[in-house]
Amino acid sequence: MTGKPDHIQAEAGRITISVDAMGGDAGPAVVVAGIAMSAARNPDISFILHGPADQLAPLVAKKHALQGRVEIRDVHDVVTMEDKPSQVMRNGKGTSMWSALDAVKNGEAAGAVSCGNTGALMALSMLRLRKLPGVNRPAIAILWPSLNPQGFNVMLDVGADVKADAEDLLQYALMGTSYVRNSMDISQPRVGLLNVGTEEHKGRTELKEAFALISENAEKSGFEFVGFVEGSDIPGDIADVIVTDGFTGNVAIKTGEGTASLMRTALKEAFEYSFLSKIAALLAMTSLKRLSKRMDPRRVNGGVFLGLNGTVVKSHGGADAMGVSAAVKLAFRLAEHGFAEKLAARVASVGAHTQDNTASRDLRAATEKD
Amino acid sequence: MTGKPDHIQAEAGRITISVDAMGGDAGPAVVVAGIAMSAARNPDISFILHGPADQLAPLVAKKHALQGRVEIRDVHDVVTMEDKPSQVMRNGKGTSMWSALDAVKNGEAAGAVSCGNTGALMALSMLRLRKLPGVNRPAIAILWPSLNPQGFNVMLDVGADVKADAEDLLQYALMGTSYVRNSMDISQPRVGLLNVGTEEHKGRTELKEAFALISENAEKSGFEFVGFVEGSDIPGDIADVIVTDGFTGNVAIKTGEGTASLMRTALKEAFEYSFLSKIAALLAMTSLKRLSKRMDPRRVNGGVFLGLNGTVVKSHGGADAMGVSAAVKLAFRLAEHGFAEKLAARVASVGAHTQDNTASRDLRAATEKD
Repeated sequence: MTGKPDHIQAEAGRITISVDAMGGDAGPAVVVAGIAMSAARNPDISFILHGPADQLAPLVAKKHALQGRVEIRDVHDVVTMEDKPSQVMRNGKGTSMWSALDAVKNGEAAGAVSCGNTGALMALSMLRLRKLPGVNRPAIAILWPSLNPQGFNVMLDVGADVKADAEDLLQYALMGTSYVRNSMDISQPRVGLLNVGTEEHKGRTELKEAFALISENAEKSGFEFVGFVEGSDIPGDIADVIVTDGFTGNVAIKTGEGTASLMRTALKEAFEYSFLSKIAALLAMTSLKRLSKRMDPRRVNGGVFLGLNGTVVKSHGGADAMGVSAAVKLAFRLAEHGFAEKLAARVASVGAHTQDNTASRDLRAATEKD
Repeated sequence: MTGKPDHIQAEAGRITISVDAMGGDAGPAVVVAGIAMSAARNPDISFILHGPADQLAPLVAKKHALQGRVEIRDVHDVVTMEDKPSQVMRNGKGTSMWSALDAVKNGEAAGAVSCGNTGALMALSMLRLRKLPGVNRPAIAILWPSLNPQGFNVMLDVGADVKADAEDLLQYALMGTSYVRNSMDISQPRVGLLNVGTEEHKGRTELKEAFALISENAEKSGFEFVGFVEGSDIPGDIADVIVTDGFTGNVAIKTGEGTASLMRTALKEAFEYSFLSKIAALLAMTSLKRLSKRMDPRRVNGGVFLGLNGTVVKSHGGADAMGVSAAVKLAFRLAEHGFAEKLAARVASVGAHTQDNTASRDLRAATEKD
């Protein structure tokens, strides 16, 4: 899609998002309800929706906000949560996921959103959109509730690949920084490298190498490197971008989610303990809702695939309409900022720099860009 | 200390715990207050306390519960949080930490407790107590609040070593199982292997190997292997023991702690939002205290070092008296169960088995033991 945003925005002045209607746990009705929420709030958005037309057309017809703003691509196969990525890469043509990515590849849409199988979506994204020049391992970045003023930190990779070497971790730092600039308006993001301690002598070899490499590139790439951070800093306030390999990142977010869920259960049980505690719960309702809203995972629904020729947002498989709408909003916001092009320029320039140390002109250009 | 528990228990019918009074963030007064809490509740415990006698004697004299139950070992050096493990191994003789471990090594105490530097404590423990025969990498096991009936799961390794191969992970499964049997009265613990997905084809190579190895050994070692688990299962109810390498485990627990801490902050802010929400907070106080108690990290304070000739409990560096007392209680309980000897038998028997497949007699003996 690089080079085509003008064409997309030209259609009725709108930005088009390509949405895979199938593959989520709750079925296409929830996806249609989600894009309708987005359409009602945002006059500048339109959709290409992928899935069986006989199911989708009646759902779309019921939503007033979607009239004249959805093109349905009639495809009948669906990638299930059980499908292996390798199978989908061989036989996935004709699925709604494949079709949704092709609309980005062909420049018809500025970004894709899917609630489907993460592994299959990443594999198909790499197959159809291809990696950005200079990127070895694409990454999945997510927003994590934190004590920072912006309310969230970005962590990557959270599961695109189970490994990352020092060069990959540098690229994650660059891509994460670019993502934060374009989604949160932070001009000089602080980057932390996840480790088991903050002392420089600690941790695995590739982390010590990455420490040196990220340090070297921080100033000229317009971010501050705060060094090693620990798991407790992921929801903390000392970094805006947390860089790690996909294995560690995935375990970390799932542990965090599990802990938050355990605390919600415990809070509920604490208030259901007795008649008096139930009364207290009624009186505390507003405060509890305020807490619940702040920690609501649906507000930050959407893992962004970074390092590809195009923007792909992975919505949670169990997302409800509000979750789908949040993922769509993220894809829209990134398209609006021309994020895909800025990221490509950023990675290319530093890639050239680390290879031959003569790309200061490109670096300056990239810094001006994002 | 192997073979000497009878001797220890014979002294006034008490079990002696060796306590490093120094090295914690809050200083020796908190440690003395903690052991006094334990002594007041438990008539069967006595202490050897290590640190500068001129500081410790007045603190001990003030605590009625400690009269006649504490022997002070006058040592003047302290391992600080900044000391590197390698330095401490070379120059640590004369520190309270070294002295506390030597009391276990010499059979004078049934277990050691320290609030000091984790890396140094593990390095010194390996130096002074030595690894159990058949153990390649000792591990640190912690209790984690969970949805299980017992209220906690055990996770290991959470930071003894940044790496673990398949054999190590099998040993962690065996050691974790033995620990659960002796600290929670669960006869057939369920073991899960931490990964980024629950499908057998996912994850790193060493995890696939470990999956096969743990499967093979589950039945004859008296535990149930539930297969791969994810980060969200660490506080969940599908496994009692979560096995992982020390890098991943350390990041996971710190992410969980950070998330719990963020939620506590958010809960506090939600209730401080307005005058009305402050009133609600007053009324909800009992319920909130109930929640707070359940999630209180001090209740489960104490990482246990597994795989050594002797029991070492690492208390949190920032532990208060209640936290120190919880760590002491854990060391006491494990000593009472003869845990160190049972664990040694368990690891030796399966080690022999995996090496030559002829140790079924030893295995039966070990199963009967723990």
